[in-house]
Amino acid sequence: MSSANLYSKVLLNSSDGIDAGNCVVSALDMGLPEDVKVELRQCVLTGGKEQGSRLITLTVGDKVLRIVPTRAMAILDATRNGIRFGWDSPVKEVVHPSFIDQGASGGIGWLDGFNEMLVRCGYQWAGHPGEDNGEFLTLHGRIQNTPADKVVLEVEQIPPYRVALRGCVDEKRFKSTNFTVNTAITLSLDEPYIYIEDTLTNKASYDNSYQAIYHNNFGAPILEEGAKLHVAANEISPFNTYAAIGLNDWDTMPAPTENFDEMVFNVKPISDKHGFGYALMANRNESAAIEVGFNTDTLPVLTIWKNVDTVEQGYVVGIEPGTSFAYNRKHQWELGLVPTIKAKQSKTFRVRFGLLTSNKEVLQSKASIQTLQTEPATMTAEPIVKL
Amino acid sequence: MSSANLYSKVLLNSSDGIDAGNCVVSALDMGLPEDVKVELRQCVLTGGKEQGSRLITLTVGDKVLRIVPTRAMAILDATRNGIRFGWDSPVKEVVHPSFIDQGASGGIGWLDGFNEMLVRCGYQWAGHPGEDNGEFLTLHGRIQNTPADKVVLEVEQIPPYRVALRGCVDEKRFKSTNFTVNTAITLSLDEPYIYIEDTLTNKASYDNSYQAIYHNNFGAPILEEGAKLHVAANEISPFNTYAAIGLNDWDTMPAPTENFDEMVFNVKPISDKHGFGYALMANRNESAAIEVGFNTDTLPVLTIWKNVDTVEQGYVVGIEPGTSFAYNRKHQWELGLVPTIKAKQSKTFRVRFGLLTSNKEVLQSKASIQTLQTEPATMTAEPIVKL
Amino acid sequence: MSSANLYSKVLLNSSDGIDAGNCVVSALDMGLPEDVKVELRQCVLTGGKEQGSRLITLTVGDKVLRIVPTRAMAILDATRNGIRFGWDSPVKEVVHPSFIDQGASGGIGWLDGFNEMLVRCGYQWAGHPGEDNGEFLTLHGRIQNTPADKVVLEVEQIPPYRVALRGCVDEKRFKSTNFTVNTAITLSLDEPYIYIEDTLTNKASYDNSYQAIYHNNFGAPILEEGAKLHVAANEISPFNTYAAIGLNDWDTMPAPTENFDEMVFNVKPISDKHGFGYALMANRNESAAIEVGFNTDTLPVLTIWKNVDTVEQGYVVGIEPGTSFAYNRKHQWELGLVPTIKAKQSKTFRVRFGLLTSNKEVLQSKASIQTLQTEPATMTAEPIVKL
Repeated sequence: MSSANLYSKVLLNSSDGIDAGNCVVSALDMGLPEDVKVELRQCVLTGGKEQGSRLITLTVGDKVLRIVPTRAMAILDATRNGIRFGWDSPVKEVVHPSFIDQGASGGIGWLDGFNEMLVRCGYQWAGHPGEDNGEFLTLHGRIQNTPADKVVLEVEQIPPYRVALRGCVDEKRFKSTNFTVNTAITLSLDEPYIYIEDTLTNKASYDNSYQAIYHNNFGAPILEEGAKLHVAANEISPFNTYAAIGLNDWDTMPAPTENFDEMVFNVKPISDKHGFGYALMANRNESAAIEVGFNTDTLPVLTIWKNVDTVEQGYVVGIEPGTSFAYNRKHQWELGLVPTIKAKQSKTFRVRFGLLTSNKEVLQSKASIQTLQTEPATMTAEPIVKL
Repeated sequence: MSSANLYSKVLLNSSDGIDAGNCVVSALDMGLPEDVKVELRQCVLTGGKEQGSRLITLTVGDKVLRIVPTRAMAILDATRNGIRFGWDSPVKEVVHPSFIDQGASGGIGWLDGFNEMLVRCGYQWAGHPGEDNGEFLTLHGRIQNTPADKVVLEVEQIPPYRVALRGCVDEKRFKSTNFTVNTAITLSLDEPYIYIEDTLTNKASYDNSYQAIYHNNFGAPILEEGAKLHVAANEISPFNTYAAIGLNDWDTMPAPTENFDEMVFNVKPISDKHGFGYALMANRNESAAIEVGFNTDTLPVLTIWKNVDTVEQGYVVGIEPGTSFAYNRKHQWELGLVPTIKAKQSKTFRVRFGLLTSNKEVLQSKASIQTLQTEPATMTAEPIVKL
Repeated sequence: MSSANLYSKVLLNSSDGIDAGNCVVSALDMGLPEDVKVELRQCVLTGGKEQGSRLITLTVGDKVLRIVPTRAMAILDATRNGIRFGWDSPVKEVVHPSFIDQGASGGIGWLDGFNEMLVRCGYQWAGHPGEDNGEFLTLHGRIQNTPADKVVLEVEQIPPYRVALRGCVDEKRFKSTNFTVNTAITLSLDEPYIYIEDTLTNKASYDNSYQAIYHNNFGAPILEEGAKLHVAANEISPFNTYAAIGLNDWDTMPAPTENFDEMVFNVKPISDKHGFGYALMANRNESAAIEVGFNTDTLPVLTIWKNVDTVEQGYVVGIEPGTSFAYNRKHQWELGLVPTIKAKQSKTFRVRFGLLTSNKEVLQSKASIQTLQTEPATMTAEPIVKL
């Protein structure tokens, strides 16, 4: 594609002093035919702990995404053909990072802002809070509470009008972390997919460890009684003794269930010839589903977070590819799940969300996952980590 | 009252994208006769740790209130007939919550912004910092460092021109706290009173514990040598061994006193037939006083914080109705002072400030408190908690 | 100087509601002849963790300073005659304090924003993180992550057109700290110097301890292989056993060196008849140098921070006069390096930066430092603190 065919608009760039603030960018502004359904709106939020958060509503054909540059380019939710992908957290605000104290209450302050469909965890560490190697690690790392810079919209001016929203998120600490993450959210008019492509670069002179979990969360209407997970998996095991009780039903979703709290399952995914693993959660009648694909070279494991408690508590299932499981990092060294990023090296994380809104799409995805599953997954009753 | 007679103006509402910013709302704007002395001014503060704080100056007849929506609808101070109710903290700035680290220095970062007349403590916990049930609780909870949303001015367009300023403050943490507090500050032209009515709602599916302390603070000119407290009380006891020394003089105020630091007294108040307890602090010649009324069903105990150190240290007395005393929560379970709020339930806290500026008003209040005190309060020399 | 000859412009003042925001103040605006090279530009930064930071670019003749009022009036860098004084930290953003959690990872969150040439450490405490007297002290104190208020530009309208930029930074905590720091950065057209004059005032009724370190940092082009330090010193000792290895070469700079990390040296400076100590770092061929002067009555000791690791890690040398060395405060009481500031008293810290850009200037400075060094400094091999 020649750059002549690329519309580009900078929404935020500190070094150039650009901040588009409240704005609308129409198809016409992008040099597209007027009837092409592509639009970007940005709102600067104004009250409570939302003050200063930016919320971008990006429409591309039948898909509408709400993206939060202020929270590391999170996707708050997505809709396609009127079906919403995301969840209803008790946290209603798009909380600005300046109101989050990640160290609060033993390192769980991250939960004060947790409500998005796509939440990045990492990159210096992810997982549960606690001490590792003399350093206290807060829940799921720092990236999600880091505002992006260099937020740019790019639109190809010819069908299928591919739209990319890019943002850059720094995770820096003198003598410790020198990470830059270039994120891209890409979608086009003719596909049900959202493509995430994040590139983590270690700008330091020294190798460093890192972790990443893509904490993707889905509630109603996909999640409902009888909704089912389909994951091409080599092995499935419970995160802890509580989840062990639910291992047999790990893939079947109950209605909102009082006192269920959460069961977490560790999955070792099978990947296809392109190096992608897949998980699908379909609603009961298989008329709609979320499909999560991910490249297993950098995201080798998958966490299923079955948080099917009451609606008010946040009835939600997480489909979370990662470098690591959700344990505190101290448990993951010996599992080989704390990878190294070499000096000046980059790691790319690819996640593809299929927003499936027809029975045909769901069955196709299911079939392709079943093709990968040539023999049954090993069900390991014992948690791999003793907590 | 019909809504036709109600003027309403939204000052801040994130979901509607409203932020009135710097503004003046005059009596005429409110649809009141021009000579009615009602006005609201809002300033967005600009420097130091004030950057971004909102300060509302609300004039209603002879009363002027300064209210801080950014700090949970705190009342910075109030004046009536030129007499100021509030205090002079060494903290001079209206500190924006984004500059407060509540966990700092063992959980006392809250003190970096502490300077208002009405400071809410709570609602998941209040009291001194320290660990309880494996969770570290910072001083006086999180609410005061939470910016309000849905800030609305309401004015009745007929005498006595009742004015209400409402704001909504969320205290949310996934899996832990799902509280919303709807606050209202109400006053009218013909009364010396400020009415606080806060409704805490537990939006979760599960019961939760909560605590609230209304940390109301008053310095000069009400507080002076010879100023006196009048509290209808069943029992008064010292908070600790240091306060025990001052128990006999608990209600009499000295001049600013070097090295006094603070003495705290725990009071079990008597309530009147309307369920209200009362405390009055009058200046020496009883020409002015602050009267604090509170509903004892939800605010059953009262803390008197006698911080009569030097002027520079913050010469101040706190009159603090609460669910609880000022101890760390771990000490209050067995005292029965950590109440439960049931799922979906609400609790309403009512505090009425009487800004008394004449001898007649003071004597009336004193008499009505004395009427409640049919027999002398029990003076308990031993602190109820061993620290 | 009569005030009639003084141009004054308030850039930020919360009590007056002034915030100049993005602005340019030209020589003409200042009432200077048009060809006098004096200008101030202020930018409000917009993206990432820079959002809301102010950056002032102040040009005075051959000198250009970048100053960050939002970070306690830090000097990001300075250039004279095209030579830059400052360093290249891995932290590239001018991080707004609201994104800094100083307590993070054992109290080192301060490092997330560390990239300036002049960084103030203090004033309640400075030095390494750790517990002292039951309080956890975070790295280098709170002042650097405190936004200034009362930012004022003052320009004398007659040669040599002295320019001062003033700002006020509060460090307050009820019952603990009641400090105000009035800072001034002064320079004039005809001199290579930047004058820092900071006045710390203890507004409390009680004496308090305090600490200050002026963490001045310089990288390339002054720092290079063969760059040399010249310090008039009574005694030089290594901070720890690692630095002891490098004591003999303490003053000679290698090229960027993998795995060097940092060596820190404690210096007891000699002062001249004006009570000033001096340190000079000159580049290899002595064509340029940074000279740091400081008044030893309030800044009696000097830390040399030799952080000559790779360029990417931040190849930098710190020349840091202070009340104290860089140890945690707990180690400095017995060294007599935790001074007291009496109630209502002020302490003034003066630092003068010589931006030397010619061989002549460098040799002059070197000679004057050598004059002070009448006998060789004592080289103490043993660290004065056992860590």
